[in-house]
Amino acid sequence: MLHCGQKSTEVALDFCLSLPHPRAMTKDNKVIAANAAFYAAFSTGDFAEMERMWADDDAISCIHPGWPAIVGRATVIGSWRDILQNPERPQIACAEPQAIVDGDSARVLCIEIVDGTALAAANHFRRVGDGWRLVHHQSSPIAQIVEQAEEDSPSHRIH
Amino acid sequence: MLHCGQKSTEVALDFCLSLPHPRAMTKDNKVIAANAAFYAAFSTGDFAEMERMWADDDAISCIHPGWPAIVGRATVIGSWRDILQNPERPQIACAEPQAIVDGDSARVLCIEIVDGTALAAANHFRRVGDGWRLVHHQSSPIAQIVEQAEEDSPSHRIH
Repeated sequence: MLHCGQKSTEVALDFCLSLPHPRAMTKDNKVIAANAAFYAAFSTGDFAEMERMWADDDAISCIHPGWPAIVGRATVIGSWRDILQNPERPQIACAEPQAIVDGDSARVLCIEIVDGTALAAANHFRRVGDGWRLVHHQSSPIAQIVEQAEEDSPSHRIH
Repeated sequence: MLHCGQKSTEVALDFCLSLPHPRAMTKDNKVIAANAAFYAAFSTGDFAEMERMWADDDAISCIHPGWPAIVGRATVIGSWRDILQNPERPQIACAEPQAIVDGDSARVLCIEIVDGTALAAANHFRRVGDGWRLVHHQSSPIAQIVEQAEEDSPSHRIH
């Protein structure tokens, strides 16, 4: 049984909007910027931008918090349409983004703050032209056991 | 606040060990086989095999259930060493693996059954020679709201 909880962290909602100037961008900055644009689209409810952020084929997938995987453009984009159309969707902020660029693939690991709850997220990108497009998003709750485990042995990890 | 729970599913523990013959493997089967080898290494506690499964550089990362991301070979491999050395680690089975091959990257989406609890997992691979090596693993609890939401509107998704 997993023990899921919450961890409060105060993060400015515009954390991901503080981007470096495009001309100064390294390859890592570009994927960090793509990641920021994803969260900005969520925050502003910009479905057209959200749709544009994702690779334009069926090799895309998403695991929303608490949900099984969904696969394919219609299903994934449809899920984001539903989410962005929901006026009661939570505020979300991205903190501590860390880019790993690996050839034509990249991922950004970050903490999502959703209504005061911390989630561990990974956004996976494919290089498309001069930019990056999402191919997979997954976000998982960070459990309260993190705090407890700091005093415990690493062997107590669930898996 | 996320509502995390469990979903019981009976799955044979050797689900992932029923591999097609190597000579009959398509590119998808090869990554499905790599994914199965990952879970087999977990089940048997074979740390050498687990270590071999991962790409041999620092561009690897992992988000264990309930945990924030960890990055880099020493940290990621170290976490698996701790887990496999724990004689009380849970049994884990992989169900419904689905491969998405995208050039030199691939991911396998599957359901992990950990002590009767269903997790949504994504295992991301990089092509290395004729095979595949893990670069990222993430596993998230599937919440009880899945059952509730089947009768609800998709707009009730958390995100």
